[in-house]
Amino acid sequence: MINSRQLEIVKVNEDTSIVIEDNLAIEEPLEIRLSFIENAENTTKPISVTMSTPGNEGELAIGFLYTEAIIQSFDQVSNVEVSLENDDQVVNVFVKENVNLDLSKLDRNFYTTSSCGVCGKSSIDSIKTVMPDFGLERINLKILPSLIHSLPEKLKDHQNVFNQTGVLHASAIFNFNGDLIVLREDVGRHNALDKLIGFCVMNNKIPLSDSILLLSGRASFELIQKASMAGIKIIAAIGAPSSLAVELAIECNITLIGFLKSTKFNIYSLPNRIELNS
Amino acid sequence: MINSRQLEIVKVNEDTSIVIEDNLAIEEPLEIRLSFIENAENTTKPISVTMSTPGNEGELAIGFLYTEAIIQSFDQVSNVEVSLENDDQVVNVFVKENVNLDLSKLDRNFYTTSSCGVCGKSSIDSIKTVMPDFGLERINLKILPSLIHSLPEKLKDHQNVFNQTGVLHASAIFNFNGDLIVLREDVGRHNALDKLIGFCVMNNKIPLSDSILLLSGRASFELIQKASMAGIKIIAAIGAPSSLAVELAIECNITLIGFLKSTKFNIYSLPNRIELNS
Repeated sequence: MINSRQLEIVKVNEDTSIVIEDNLAIEEPLEIRLSFIENAENTTKPISVTMSTPGNEGELAIGFLYTEAIIQSFDQVSNVEVSLENDDQVVNVFVKENVNLDLSKLDRNFYTTSSCGVCGKSSIDSIKTVMPDFGLERINLKILPSLIHSLPEKLKDHQNVFNQTGVLHASAIFNFNGDLIVLREDVGRHNALDKLIGFCVMNNKIPLSDSILLLSGRASFELIQKASMAGIKIIAAIGAPSSLAVELAIECNITLIGFLKSTKFNIYSLPNRIELNS
Repeated sequence: MINSRQLEIVKVNEDTSIVIEDNLAIEEPLEIRLSFIENAENTTKPISVTMSTPGNEGELAIGFLYTEAIIQSFDQVSNVEVSLENDDQVVNVFVKENVNLDLSKLDRNFYTTSSCGVCGKSSIDSIKTVMPDFGLERINLKILPSLIHSLPEKLKDHQNVFNQTGVLHASAIFNFNGDLIVLREDVGRHNALDKLIGFCVMNNKIPLSDSILLLSGRASFELIQKASMAGIKIIAAIGAPSSLAVELAIECNITLIGFLKSTKFNIYSLPNRIELNS
C-alpha cells in the first residue's frame, strides 16, 4: 500500500459523526531533470515538476521526455537516476554524448508542455510535425465490439489490487486478444500514461500499433497527443472526450472510443476499425 | 450552447450501431500574457497556455495571475484584452505603471505553475510565504451538516443549465446560508476555479472567508492552493482529496470535506467548524 497514506478522518452521516482511519492517495512533487553535454560541459536542466503518485519514477520521466519529443528512443539515454533532494523526488535522465538535443525546444517546453493539458499555438499542426513516422499501417484491422466491452471489467480487476483509495487514474495497454499487457496508475491522468509509455519505451515496445489503450477517465487532448507519439491507433476511454481530443484523433488516424461501459460505447473517430452491424 | 460542439458519432450497443449527433465539450488553447513597463519600455510576456472551455477568459487570466501571486489585486490592472491570434484565444492583462512585479517569480512560473498540478520544491512552505494575510479569523464559526449536504443538489440544478456534455468540472461559492453566489465551469478543474476566483478578484469579493467552496470533482493540491490565496476556509469536494491536499488544508487552516453526498461526507481537516453530534 505504498500509494496511500492512513489518516484519521471524521465520517459524517446526516448529523452524526465517527472518527475512523482512512486511506488517502499520495501525491508528491516529482522533478524531472535532463543531463547532457553542452559545449563539452556537463549540463543539467530542470524540465518539469509534476504532482505524482510515488513509484515508477524513471518510467514517468522517460515517458514524459519521449511524448514531448525531447528524446526519440531509450537508446539515447545512458542513465536514469532517482534520488531524494530536500524531501522531494528527483529523476535525472542522462542523455548520451552523441545525441543532438534541440535545446530551443527544451526552453519552449517550460510553458508549452502538453502533460499539463497545455499546448502552444496551432497545437495540432505542431504535434503532427514531431510525431514519429512508424511506417505503413495495418489495413483491414477489425476489432470486435465484445473485446472492447470486456476491457473495463479487466481494468477494474487489476486496479483493485493497487488502488485502495478510489481516486487513481489508470492507463492500460491490451493486445488485440484483449490480454492486459501493462497497467499504470497515478493521481494525474497524464502521469499514468507517461509511466505506461515510459515502460514501453524502456522495453522496446514502441510503436504500440497492435494495442488498445484504455483510459480510466476522460479522453483529453494531451492524452491523445501522448498516445499518438507512441503509435497507438485505438483508444477507449471510460469517460468523455473533448472536442479537441476528437479533432486530434482524426488528424492522427486514431480510433477514439468514449463513454465505454460493459455493453455500450460511442465511437468519435475512424469507426471503420470496429466490426459493427448497423 | 457555446461550451459544446455538435458532432456525428457512432453509438454502439452490444454489436449493433447507429449514427447520431452528439455534443462534445469544447476545449481550446488560451494563452495568458502579461504587459507591463520595464525600464521605461512596454513589455509583453507570455505567462501560460491552458486548454480551457471558451468563455470568461478575462476572469480566468485574472484568477490565474492572482492565485499565482503575480498580481495582488485588480487595482493593479489597467486593462484586460481578449483577442484572437492565429485562431487561438489570447488574454493580455495590462499591469499599471506603478506596480512592482517580481519578474524572477514570473520566469520561475513557467515550470512551477500550480495550475497544472505542478509545484516547486518545499511547495507548502513556499505557498505559505505568498499567502495574503487577511487578518483575524472568525472564531466560533459553526456550519450545520444539513447545509453541506444540500450543496451537491444545488450545484447540479445550476450545472444542468450550462453543461450538456457531462464532462465539465465546476467550482462554486456558497454563502453560509447555502445560497449560490457564483459558479464557473471548465474542462480543466483548475480553470474553473481560476475563473471563479478571477470573478471575485474583479468584483472586490476577496477574501472569501464567509464562503464555502464546492468542487465538483477531486480536491487536488493545486485547488487547495488557489482557494487558500482567496481566503477560503471551508472546501467541500464531491470527490476524494489527495494526501498533499489534506496536508496543505491543515497548514492553511482550511476545513476540507471530501466524498460529499446528499447525506454523507468525510472531514479531513479542522472538523471543529462543522456542528456535529458524535
